[in-house]
Amino acid sequence: MSERPDFMKIALDLARKAGEAGEVPVAALLVHDGEIIASAPNRMRELNDPTAHAEMLALREALGKRSGARLDDCDLYVTLEPCTMCAGAIAHARVRRLYYAARDPKAGAVESGVRFFDQPTCHHRPEVISGIREDEAAEMLRRFFAEKR
Amino acid sequence: MSERPDFMKIALDLARKAGEAGEVPVAALLVHDGEIIASAPNRMRELNDPTAHAEMLALREALGKRSGARLDDCDLYVTLEPCTMCAGAIAHARVRRLYYAARDPKAGAVESGVRFFDQPTCHHRPEVISGIREDEAAEMLRRFFAEKR
Repeated sequence: MSERPDFMKIALDLARKAGEAGEVPVAALLVHDGEIIASAPNRMRELNDPTAHAEMLALREALGKRSGARLDDCDLYVTLEPCTMCAGAIAHARVRRLYYAARDPKAGAVESGVRFFDQPTCHHRPEVISGIREDEAAEMLRRFFAEKR
Repeated sequence: MSERPDFMKIALDLARKAGEAGEVPVAALLVHDGEIIASAPNRMRELNDPTAHAEMLALREALGKRSGARLDDCDLYVTLEPCTMCAGAIAHARVRRLYYAARDPKAGAVESGVRFFDQPTCHHRPEVISGIREDEAAEMLRRFFAEKR
């Protein structure tokens, strides 16, 4: 019997490693047909690029492996609610389903902030499933920022 | 006597060339101290990447040339009102001033749509100057889409 892998746990493990390297601990995976086709942690610090969010990197990696410019048969797992930039990118790439762990009231754009997928200027709305391993993801971020202070 | 270059004209020329190559004709420039430090047209089609908007590419190019992760001494010129993804990226990169030509009521996010820079989840608001060479930019886009039909 094959079990569906716990993709959010895999993403959280990747986020934890990024946090140990000094990045804000967030990571994203793209899954097609039960297989991870792209994965990335935040790399803003490493790449000196404030747009190098995990979601942006994973989306580009997945698109680079495909002939079409759509990910409408792919699901994105991310450990934190996507920001406005990333929500825009998720819509552009036509991701089928978005799973995320912790909410981000300060900078999120799905259930927080501009709630982009509910707006008329959003031209593709993924199915959204939030709150998976939320406590674990939130605690990882809390600890990271507490240690920074 | 040295005159300030007409940066929007330069961006429009770049956009026109992109349109001739089949891309949606939009281009962006980053200017520091009167010098263009990065420039890009839309490359979604060429790169098979729906996130390869002119602004994203120009921001990454400029950041790649600098030691800091901020463009707070740089101005961005773009021929079309930035979308939600690009507005988010502009805020993350802390661009000082944003100049754009045509409005984009369908997908823009500055004076249209989510008006991101006016929202509490936006943590940096560039100065915005819009409407420069607006008619020329709008006409270029209109013609491009008319020919596509």
